[in-house]
Amino acid sequence: MDTAFSASLDAGLSGATRVYHIVGDPIAQVKSPAGVTAAMRARGSDAIVIPAHVAPADLATYFAGATATRNVDGVIVTVPHKFAATEFCKSLTDEAAFLGAANMLKRNADGSWHGGTSDGVGMVAALRAAGCRPEGKRASLIGAGGAGSAIGFSLVEAGVASLAIRDFDAARTGALASRLAGLGHGAVTVSDDTDPQSYDIVVNASPAGMRPGDPLPLDVSTLAPTTFVGDVVTKPPLTPFIEAARARGCQTVTGTQMFERVCEAIVEFLLED
Amino acid sequence: MDTAFSASLDAGLSGATRVYHIVGDPIAQVKSPAGVTAAMRARGSDAIVIPAHVAPADLATYFAGATATRNVDGVIVTVPHKFAATEFCKSLTDEAAFLGAANMLKRNADGSWHGGTSDGVGMVAALRAAGCRPEGKRASLIGAGGAGSAIGFSLVEAGVASLAIRDFDAARTGALASRLAGLGHGAVTVSDDTDPQSYDIVVNASPAGMRPGDPLPLDVSTLAPTTFVGDVVTKPPLTPFIEAARARGCQTVTGTQMFERVCEAIVEFLLED
Repeated sequence: MDTAFSASLDAGLSGATRVYHIVGDPIAQVKSPAGVTAAMRARGSDAIVIPAHVAPADLATYFAGATATRNVDGVIVTVPHKFAATEFCKSLTDEAAFLGAANMLKRNADGSWHGGTSDGVGMVAALRAAGCRPEGKRASLIGAGGAGSAIGFSLVEAGVASLAIRDFDAARTGALASRLAGLGHGAVTVSDDTDPQSYDIVVNASPAGMRPGDPLPLDVSTLAPTTFVGDVVTKPPLTPFIEAARARGCQTVTGTQMFERVCEAIVEFLLED
Repeated sequence: MDTAFSASLDAGLSGATRVYHIVGDPIAQVKSPAGVTAAMRARGSDAIVIPAHVAPADLATYFAGATATRNVDGVIVTVPHKFAATEFCKSLTDEAAFLGAANMLKRNADGSWHGGTSDGVGMVAALRAAGCRPEGKRASLIGAGGAGSAIGFSLVEAGVASLAIRDFDAARTGALASRLAGLGHGAVTVSDDTDPQSYDIVVNASPAGMRPGDPLPLDVSTLAPTTFVGDVVTKPPLTPFIEAARARGCQTVTGTQMFERVCEAIVEFLLED
């Protein structure tokens, strides 16, 4: 474990420590208990994030128990429970309601759960940290799955003038474009990989780049040095797409940089009143 | 927090960490999450003990959730749940079955709970650590409540030749003496505070000594320098009774020393196969 986390625990673990769970199946692979705990403690909170390994069939029983445990202030939700988690929320953020998914739950005043999502706000926060101002910009999104839907929502909410979405699954691409257009914030269209247009913002939310030999998610010759380029892929830490974008002079956001902001968004959501 | 605990957490907190709860109502006052976690990590276990604040009315819901959470390997139980906890155990140690109470639960092979208690074994282990060999000795116990019953059971199991019990509540004293005698290990009798006999082992399991001005739990003039004297009271750390016993040359076990052994007994129970 990193020493920052160890040092942060000098603040204590006791009966008064507030508890947050991260629930998933499997759970042993997640790294966030140490990182999110350290981030919460850096903000002065006597809190800890602990793993909860719960099978889908047991999720309702688990949530009943977590709800009855008065010092559990929040639950981070990971695969495969992000969609089912909404069933246990009395209220949802606009983004979580749009996506039909929640990856972070905190208490309402009556003890019930309020659900939110962090992937989209995390990517937009990382783009802003790289110097990008999404307002009025032309954006392109590759991938219309869970991460892509979240990032598309957050880009539209952030005020992009237009969003072009591309995915191998035409049905879900069209559905997402239609629903995002329905939010009434900007033009949302379906594009294809012959799209010659240059964008101000390009985000890969597809798995392309995870395996050696994957084709690049788009033709990098369309990238201008002023284009901001983001990628959700974290393994490898530096994808061929990000490398190619940097070679063209673009400012970039790696998957790791995005997930640092996702972690911050989770901490912000869970600790704010 | 003490640095030993902080250093012990260098072993990590991650999705693979095994989780133990300590459940009570209230819970904020308990100190054991740090101490028991440190003890488990000192034995090489990637484990953590976290508090669970659960009201009596919610205990069944809580236990259903804990049972469904596959990385929860054990539950430490504190006030007021020690008696009710047995309802959620499929099996009990002999001591827990005798007491009708459990303060530590671990998994059976089928995922159900096996309950045990640690107060009695903790006091006997502390007496042994002070040099006492209970086998064949004459013991006196003041207090026939929860702690007294547990210590009485463990003294009888440890092989004392006789046990004299005294408590202001004649009914519960007689009932405990009768049930302990029924175990068939040694003579168990009811005594009173005019008892002039000298004992080899004297244990105070009553609250006497917690408030300034409390009378001593027994006439210390009956103590011989060879008598081993124990006290369950932890506040103050050094009770007038222990001070008086030391003045007479006795080897002593304070409440704090007992609870160190109770903690060890919990760790031993929870981590052993």
